[in-house]
Amino acid sequence: MNQIAEAVLAGDIRTLARAASWIEQRRPEAETLLREIFVRTGRGLLIGVTGPPGAGKSTLCDQLVGVLRREGKTVAVIAVDPSSPFSGGAILGDRIRMQRHHADPGVFIRSMATRGWMGGLAAATLETALLLDAAGFDVILIETVGAGQDEVDVARLAGVTLVVLAPGMGDDVQAIKAGMMEIADVLVLNKADLAGADQLEQQLRTTLAIGASKELPAIVRTVAEEGTGVAETLAAARAAARTADDPARVAHLWSLRLRDMLRERLMDRYPAEVFLAAAEEVAARRTDPYTVLNGWLNEH
Amino acid sequence: MNQIAEAVLAGDIRTLARAASWIEQRRPEAETLLREIFVRTGRGLLIGVTGPPGAGKSTLCDQLVGVLRREGKTVAVIAVDPSSPFSGGAILGDRIRMQRHHADPGVFIRSMATRGWMGGLAAATLETALLLDAAGFDVILIETVGAGQDEVDVARLAGVTLVVLAPGMGDDVQAIKAGMMEIADVLVLNKADLAGADQLEQQLRTTLAIGASKELPAIVRTVAEEGTGVAETLAAARAAARTADDPARVAHLWSLRLRDMLRERLMDRYPAEVFLAAAEEVAARRTDPYTVLNGWLNEH
Repeated sequence: MNQIAEAVLAGDIRTLARAASWIEQRRPEAETLLREIFVRTGRGLLIGVTGPPGAGKSTLCDQLVGVLRREGKTVAVIAVDPSSPFSGGAILGDRIRMQRHHADPGVFIRSMATRGWMGGLAAATLETALLLDAAGFDVILIETVGAGQDEVDVARLAGVTLVVLAPGMGDDVQAIKAGMMEIADVLVLNKADLAGADQLEQQLRTTLAIGASKELPAIVRTVAEEGTGVAETLAAARAAARTADDPARVAHLWSLRLRDMLRERLMDRYPAEVFLAAAEEVAARRTDPYTVLNGWLNEH
Repeated sequence: MNQIAEAVLAGDIRTLARAASWIEQRRPEAETLLREIFVRTGRGLLIGVTGPPGAGKSTLCDQLVGVLRREGKTVAVIAVDPSSPFSGGAILGDRIRMQRHHADPGVFIRSMATRGWMGGLAAATLETALLLDAAGFDVILIETVGAGQDEVDVARLAGVTLVVLAPGMGDDVQAIKAGMMEIADVLVLNKADLAGADQLEQQLRTTLAIGASKELPAIVRTVAEEGTGVAETLAAARAAARTADDPARVAHLWSLRLRDMLRERLMDRYPAEVFLAAAEEVAARRTDPYTVLNGWLNEH
């Protein structure tokens, strides 16, 4: 085993940061390293935290870190931010809230950029989680800011997924919720002190009852701002993790993960220039997209 | 040219609905048809409409349809809903609002399901838009409910993209906004009668000025509920479309579209069983994901 892998397994913070950058940059060193340390993964508890904007995911994560640290557990937080190529990075709102843990050596915080909307976020986030798992963190929280399919995929790949909701959101949020209900192991009804919390819980229970094709997720009420219900949320996540340890579920999870990783690697074969040259022909209607695609597919 | 292609080009509604289902189901007939009608695409104006939940995208689309119909233009609306496999379909909130156009033969409305979060939404939506473009609709609106990368991709593939924002949203929405600013040709500041509208506009202008690497998007203020600013929004979209007609931009757009379509087709080669068999080995740590992936990549 090489030195870098050993430093990762020893939890060396600088090495972890460096390796996480390799993963984000899709450097071949990342694969070599991850292959070497893979046997040491599968010990930490990976928890995905997702939900619509404004539901209070960051505050909840912050509080979960606090509870875990009081238990003496080490925690890694992977914050998936939709970043802007032109602003040069992620927006700070959520990370500022996490800063009270920045000086704590038992907490490792890493933000993921979305690489100019080219996809691959889920695969890179998963690989970062595997890295931190091998490094020995007891719990790895993956917080996805946003509410779309890509963000949901990220949270789902964690294995145990908390979906955070709050009362008082509009129609669009209702629609998003439907997709997220699928992947929830624990539904966190945050801002439970607001008017509408009872009504939202009732709606959730009704919706869940209709679609009872799998085990129903636990529902936990929280007021994350005040720390209320945070310990209960963690307990529910741990209970879900025990169920998630079922071999059939673990295998299903890995099949989703492998699919995502494969998708990335397949696309790596086609550099940007290939697309641009063909695009001009298609745009001018000198050929059609299907002729182009079939040509590429036959090449590889 | 076969009968179905002719019926599509003639705008036959039943045939369009059937062809749209083929696209969603990834049936080979879809490709055959689209290849045949592709030369007839590129005439309609494709407008993507995206933005965070609650900003008022559906209301704006509904109003845009009204303005276009008064001009005598035909309109297709593709509504991209995060749907739930267990609820059996999309949530109705947004579609109910569009129903006043349902009896109008000059308006065609189609909802896209997200196929169980397996990706491919952007490619399927684009192909549906090409179908409706060939069918002769003057304007094709692609409304994406949601706020994540996948939804943003969908809107971006349209070529002209409206990003709808509203005052009074939290931190998370700010973060999403950064990603969406990139792709906006027109920024629609909806609910402009609310407190905070001036402040939001000021923030947008400041943010845009910092990142002035490309032409700045137009900013239009609307109160979509009352129809205020809707005609101006359409005018701004049309102005953006003229800029978007630049050959370099069109080629870039097609390179993004081809990338998305290729990604789908590559993944079609690997059926679910392949993933599940390997997943069991990986989950048991009898092998690692990279060994598995490299095996697959060498096969094809």
